[in-house]
Amino acid sequence: MRNELVQKLVEHQGEYVSGERLSESLGVSRTAIWKQIEVLKKQGYQIESAPKKGYQLMGRPDGLQEHDIHLYLHTKRLGQSVSYYATVPSTQAVAHELAQAGEPEGHVVVADEQTSGRGRFGRNWSSAAGTSISMSLLLRPALAPENVPPLTLVAAVAVTRAIEKVTDLEADIKWPNDILLNGKKIVGILTEMQSEPGLANVVILGIGINANQTDEELIHDDRNQSTSLATEKGELINRAELLANILEEFEWLYDAYLKNGFKEIKLLWEARSISIGLNLEAKSIHGTVTGRSVGISEDGALLVEDAQGITHKVYSADVQSKN
Amino acid sequence: MRNELVQKLVEHQGEYVSGERLSESLGVSRTAIWKQIEVLKKQGYQIESAPKKGYQLMGRPDGLQEHDIHLYLHTKRLGQSVSYYATVPSTQAVAHELAQAGEPEGHVVVADEQTSGRGRFGRNWSSAAGTSISMSLLLRPALAPENVPPLTLVAAVAVTRAIEKVTDLEADIKWPNDILLNGKKIVGILTEMQSEPGLANVVILGIGINANQTDEELIHDDRNQSTSLATEKGELINRAELLANILEEFEWLYDAYLKNGFKEIKLLWEARSISIGLNLEAKSIHGTVTGRSVGISEDGALLVEDAQGITHKVYSADVQSKN
Repeated sequence: MRNELVQKLVEHQGEYVSGERLSESLGVSRTAIWKQIEVLKKQGYQIESAPKKGYQLMGRPDGLQEHDIHLYLHTKRLGQSVSYYATVPSTQAVAHELAQAGEPEGHVVVADEQTSGRGRFGRNWSSAAGTSISMSLLLRPALAPENVPPLTLVAAVAVTRAIEKVTDLEADIKWPNDILLNGKKIVGILTEMQSEPGLANVVILGIGINANQTDEELIHDDRNQSTSLATEKGELINRAELLANILEEFEWLYDAYLKNGFKEIKLLWEARSISIGLNLEAKSIHGTVTGRSVGISEDGALLVEDAQGITHKVYSADVQSKN
Repeated sequence: MRNELVQKLVEHQGEYVSGERLSESLGVSRTAIWKQIEVLKKQGYQIESAPKKGYQLMGRPDGLQEHDIHLYLHTKRLGQSVSYYATVPSTQAVAHELAQAGEPEGHVVVADEQTSGRGRFGRNWSSAAGTSISMSLLLRPALAPENVPPLTLVAAVAVTRAIEKVTDLEADIKWPNDILLNGKKIVGILTEMQSEPGLANVVILGIGINANQTDEELIHDDRNQSTSLATEKGELINRAELLANILEEFEWLYDAYLKNGFKEIKLLWEARSISIGLNLEAKSIHGTVTGRSVGISEDGALLVEDAQGITHKVYSADVQSKN
């Protein structure tokens, strides 16, 4: 009932609400209310209590717990249950294990800090404590395995839309899985699946976001300059609000993809992409393709035209611009 | 050192070997030897001890523990470490979790009984206590996800070869993942993977074998008649020996597949297959194909020619014969 208590306190922000009233509307004892208030205070909620008047919410932490997220959540299925970790090696690993244990679609694993978070191809994805968002969303689509990779592109559209809604910043999508602001990396997406031939049983959609890091807190790797939403916006952002908006945007785009395929979403993706019309080199497990990116296929592959005029479909690769 | 102790006792079967000698050759105390002997006795090992003479192995259980399997194992990488469970919901689920925790290639999860073992498409795969083999082999091939499904066919070849070596019975392969004896199901294979676009990080190869079940112990489902190796052979088989031989056969076939692809293994597969030249119906997530199976492609797909003479590549499906 912590979710409902936070909801009530927020509704009555700026005024006192009595323990008795909270107790009645939530259907629990006043002692239970008091205990939950103490828990919330420890999490950084500023709550004043006054005899006979009750409790007043004075301020909230920038938290990522279920009750923080649910304040902003308007989804039907995604994010209704959340596993929160202050620190965890990898939210992806936790989500994979929960999937094996039978956790249903829509569950979110979120952490304030990842100590060995992963990016594509086993690379490290660092995430500083309390300033980043590391989340893994558990999905159980009825898809053939070959139809899962475009979910990375669906997620990229959802994340850029949510960023724009919450911060007014217009982010760019770099195929296949990066989101940039002013040419610097702000989000990485990692779509993993558990599958058997012919059927993807589980998809774990991992999203790592540089939210409130200062420039000193950001870790720049060899391949990418990084920035954070707060650095670009000039003010701190509300991480729970952004996360809830990502789930909301992803929910309808995901449903549209399951129903109609990538065709409709392709237009939204192209409008935000900076990966078309570039000279590039795409390295994958199948080899290296060098050429000019001329578009994206209806199954989410990058179309690269080489010097001989042959168009290659690149389904997954490291992409490096060349000029 | 339990593996080495069992090895020594087996080497000296038919004679006593002194506690002192065992203690010296294994580099542990005589008390440690005595303790391990007691553990082995509880597992069903028949070991006589006599003052001044030492220990004599009189008989072994049909066990599937690491030391049982290692008596027969001649592999380089596969099965060097084994997690054994007397009973477990699903060896596949355990292997998936171990993979997330970083367990390296070659690890085997094996159980004497599975209470909710799984087959393809989330179906149940029953396995009676102490008479079946339920195993999951953890692999980390450097393969693109689309090159993983043929591993089911590679495994089918390995299992039929191992069955022939251990029992002299010639089993048939039914595309994609069943092995039959006299038209009845004896083995099911389930190849699952954890992947990201472009790279399969983990493959979990699950093999369920009806080994020593009596006809009453076998569970027949709607789609298949079942039998066991013991029923067909007329004598009990050594499960650890069969499991070790499967790992040995699979090891070289797997290496050949990684190096040269499916082309070479295709010939071995076709020699044991009963799935070519049949009128059938193949149901998959993409729809139903009806026609005649005319062969298998070099990427492991069943080639089905329909009434209009069009050949369809079927990568994964439920196949039902029609006449």
